[in-house]
Amino acid sequence: TILHIFKEIFKAGVELQSDDHQKALLVSRKKQPTDTIVNVNGEQIGNGTPTFIFGPCAVESYDQVAAVAKEIKAKGLTMLRGGAYKPRTSPYDFQGLGLDGLKILKQVADEYDLRVVSEIVNPADIETAVDYVDVIQIGARNMQNFELLKAAGSVNKPVLLKRGLAATIEEFINAAEYIMSRGNGQIILCERGIRTYEKATRNTLDISAVPILKKETHLPVFVDVTHSTGRRDLLLPTAKAALAIGADGVMAEVHPDPAVALSDSAQQMDFNQFDDFYEQIMKTVKAYQL
Amino acid sequence: TILHIFKEIFKAGVELQSDDHQKALLVSRKKQPTDTIVNVNGEQIGNGTPTFIFGPCAVESYDQVAAVAKEIKAKGLTMLRGGAYKPRTSPYDFQGLGLDGLKILKQVADEYDLRVVSEIVNPADIETAVDYVDVIQIGARNMQNFELLKAAGSVNKPVLLKRGLAATIEEFINAAEYIMSRGNGQIILCERGIRTYEKATRNTLDISAVPILKKETHLPVFVDVTHSTGRRDLLLPTAKAALAIGADGVMAEVHPDPAVALSDSAQQMDFNQFDDFYEQIMKTVKAYQL
Amino acid sequence: TILHIFKEIFKAGVELQSDDHQKALLVSRKKQPTDTIVNVNGEQIGNGTPTFIFGPCAVESYDQVAAVAKEIKAKGLTMLRGGAYKPRTSPYDFQGLGLDGLKILKQVADEYDLRVVSEIVNPADIETAVDYVDVIQIGARNMQNFELLKAAGSVNKPVLLKRGLAATIEEFINAAEYIMSRGNGQIILCERGIRTYEKATRNTLDISAVPILKKETHLPVFVDVTHSTGRRDLLLPTAKAALAIGADGVMAEVHPDPAVALSDSAQQMDFNQFDDFYEQIMKTVKAYQL
Amino acid sequence: TILHIFKEIFKAGVELQSDDHQKALLVSRKKQPTDTIVNVNGEQIGNGTPTFIFGPCAVESYDQVAAVAKEIKAKGLTMLRGGAYKPRTSPYDFQGLGLDGLKILKQVADEYDLRVVSEIVNPADIETAVDYVDVIQIGARNMQNFELLKAAGSVNKPVLLKRGLAATIEEFINAAEYIMSRGNGQIILCERGIRTYEKATRNTLDISAVPILKKETHLPVFVDVTHSTGRRDLLLPTAKAALAIGADGVMAEVHPDPAVALSDSAQQMDFNQFDDFYEQIMKTVKAYQL
Repeated sequence: TILHIFKEIFKAGVELQSDDHQKALLVSRKKQPTDTIVNVNGEQIGNGTPTFIFGPCAVESYDQVAAVAKEIKAKGLTMLRGGAYKPRTSPYDFQGLGLDGLKILKQVADEYDLRVVSEIVNPADIETAVDYVDVIQIGARNMQNFELLKAAGSVNKPVLLKRGLAATIEEFINAAEYIMSRGNGQIILCERGIRTYEKATRNTLDISAVPILKKETHLPVFVDVTHSTGRRDLLLPTAKAALAIGADGVMAEVHPDPAVALSDSAQQMDFNQFDDFYEQIMKTVKAYQL
Repeated sequence: TILHIFKEIFKAGVELQSDDHQKALLVSRKKQPTDTIVNVNGEQIGNGTPTFIFGPCAVESYDQVAAVAKEIKAKGLTMLRGGAYKPRTSPYDFQGLGLDGLKILKQVADEYDLRVVSEIVNPADIETAVDYVDVIQIGARNMQNFELLKAAGSVNKPVLLKRGLAATIEEFINAAEYIMSRGNGQIILCERGIRTYEKATRNTLDISAVPILKKETHLPVFVDVTHSTGRRDLLLPTAKAALAIGADGVMAEVHPDPAVALSDSAQQMDFNQFDDFYEQIMKTVKAYQL
Repeated sequence: TILHIFKEIFKAGVELQSDDHQKALLVSRKKQPTDTIVNVNGEQIGNGTPTFIFGPCAVESYDQVAAVAKEIKAKGLTMLRGGAYKPRTSPYDFQGLGLDGLKILKQVADEYDLRVVSEIVNPADIETAVDYVDVIQIGARNMQNFELLKAAGSVNKPVLLKRGLAATIEEFINAAEYIMSRGNGQIILCERGIRTYEKATRNTLDISAVPILKKETHLPVFVDVTHSTGRRDLLLPTAKAALAIGADGVMAEVHPDPAVALSDSAQQMDFNQFDDFYEQIMKTVKAYQL
Repeated sequence: TILHIFKEIFKAGVELQSDDHQKALLVSRKKQPTDTIVNVNGEQIGNGTPTFIFGPCAVESYDQVAAVAKEIKAKGLTMLRGGAYKPRTSPYDFQGLGLDGLKILKQVADEYDLRVVSEIVNPADIETAVDYVDVIQIGARNMQNFELLKAAGSVNKPVLLKRGLAATIEEFINAAEYIMSRGNGQIILCERGIRTYEKATRNTLDISAVPILKKETHLPVFVDVTHSTGRRDLLLPTAKAALAIGADGVMAEVHPDPAVALSDSAQQMDFNQFDDFYEQIMKTVKAYQL
């Protein structure tokens, strides 16, 4: 019947449209079928072996960062995170040490031979940040700060892009495209939970986003278990789920003394918890022969 | 200072309140620290070994159900699902075969020595259903149909309770309490995705709900990967994540010919996909020595 | 170009599809261009003059209901609400007086010549309810309790159908269609807020739903300002907005002594607040010559 | 009883806490009980008479903006909006004319004696923007771009701050505080819809946010009916609701030929629709004696 023919044409039209759209994106797997492996000073991200990024929420002092770095190094790990510029809901909350924080991270990273991941929040700071960090993090609140994306796309430095608080997967992919369209294809995507009505967790970890992002793009995909859940007791189970579903790595916060942390005190691991977390998660890695 | 004392009293008050509240619940782990194992005619659910429930979205005919049952049996599995009463958005969509559907399920289950899980939607049908099904399913749309919960709580038959479309974990736990408070403690909780702004998936699988429910209650927790995602390509990865995070079982839809299914045609597995799904998920089970 | 032609056909296809779908619905304005006016024992709902429904959250005693009825009557109003069957999150919360509650409502309504709106939650109770209430309310948690909808559609009694906690407008319209497809077209739709991430209000009043429902269907549309907001201070402003945007009526809760109410104590108006609310809202009604 | 005393202390504690928090904010009504009136070159915003801001989504050409300006002027209005820097989901969508767009706006505004509202997206552009616009708009995607907020807080120019896509009211208020804490108290808040599961509208207009923001802060509150709804047919009813609930003004998009607009073509009004919209909304203004 004519209605059936219309339906078929309709379907073909829909596919044509979405095909066209996806064909245009540099980050899409249609454009590049093979996985992008991001090279962070020799550390390969997205090569099949999961990578872990640990560190305090915020850089508070040299001693604090060095203490965490020592723990990371002792586990044979290579990546250190820490916030120098802190986007905070209230202007009266601790805003981070800024450039001094980046300097502390750089010094500690040099001493312990680690790679630094740190968030930059102002397009004007990207150029400077390149000298201090090994991975530029763009945070959830800035996922559609397109000026910042463009600036990060214009330098030769890996970028870890976090999904926005209420960003769709399509918007997330397009935000990555802003970076890659400027010439920088060294991008790590990071699912960090989305805002929903549920209040048992700080955000709702959208675990399905991991396989979707792996399918739609050729970029490595991380899961930030700390901000996804906001609960120390959920870090390990969600990290296990992240690796099982195919994430290329996991990010979590570690602090020498979470109770006195200047931010996120309720969700960072102390060193004992960190040891336990790492021991348990390595069992998963081995079980899967990841 | 007096302000500090007030704060301390305040905290104590908060804890007292929530303590009180949780103490009252029969389903809470505070009431019963050990895991409830639900016995479905000899099949132990929640004993540490994951259970799988497969079957078509809707019962359409004896042949259709028998074909699926044969596949399930061939894998050494024991649980069969199928909808006889179908809650559908539109009154003009297929509403299920009703009691005839239950009879088909019963006949097939007897022939293949399987246990039947099927949804009941009317409190008045609970008494009859007991003769046909081994597990009464209460669907997402009925999670707060308290009359149905009370009716299910008044019979001696395991209940699989699905989380509501937009139910909080607290509401979910309280819905289970409706059942248990009537005397029926044989309850399986089932996370099946929640409604969010994200449209890449039919619902958003709230994977963190699994460890939270395991911690807060003593009941077995399942994940329905079909309705969580609504996408055939996400069934396997989400099932792996579900088992990795500690789910007691996984539910997924299988149909002899999904393209002609009377409901959910886009998300059911055909038999080849089912074989592949099961082979892959068993690798996860073995990797974890579940 | 061929692509352009395809696009045009595609658009035509989309319109054809949705046309088809809407054509099928009895509640749609395409089916009946003129407004349905619901007649509740002589009170015309949906005739251009706004209707107000007031009353306590739950029926607690004859004296309580009679006190409210007296206030309603004194304002020249005709509609009284009150819950006899209360769907509550916890089984240990007050569940309502049941049939005794309906009897109280009936007695008071007879004495004060008012029409009663009361929620029914079990399909089995619909037949009985017909003798006690003038409008059967179907609550948010039961909007997709299709057995209840079918039962309500099978009697000759107006139905006030509340939107589900997280129901789409399309699902809401289809729920009404369940009722009308069984023969009962005396339906009042009631927006009562949807579940979102925002916690400043109990739910988020989706005010745009009112003109959409008025456009898509021929049914009267109410706004329940009490449950939309959960805040006494927002009842009046949201009621004003509801009338300004074209709602056919407003529902709000009134209790002789909210502080000791067995449910919803934080959001019901006492009599002084009720007087003030009514005086203010009538100014809006007059300003608009509604 | 001791439990009752505890409860009372508990309540007092809660109030103390939130009191403390709100006392700290410069934007809060506790800090300044009287309404802030924002003066935009003589146009008083927040003085009890509603203000209207109209204009195209994006500045496309001098002729396009001038045509709209002429229509605005003919109605005796004084405010013109238009986007020169356009935050777009895809890097391949029209990104706006940038500084050239600001120059066009300035020229047209001078010719028609209008005041210009235009979005700035890069902190580095704030200083320049001051010479071209009368109100700096900060868009939804940048509501928590704290560097931009700080930059806008450091100049002497009114700021129209839009609520973020999924921002809570508390976060919105704190974003305004970022601006005011830097010395600039000339802030207009703008509700523009929040992201929810409902897809009948582009966003869900959170109309209750208006009275809450008016109560919690002393700042004028606008409603952007275009982005809240994304539907031309809902602009007028939502504008009526906005004024009825107490908004200080309404923003809506107008374009000489929406069908060929470079952005938001589906939701802008053409001049006939604009005439009708304005005529109808003025009836509401008069009815309320606003």
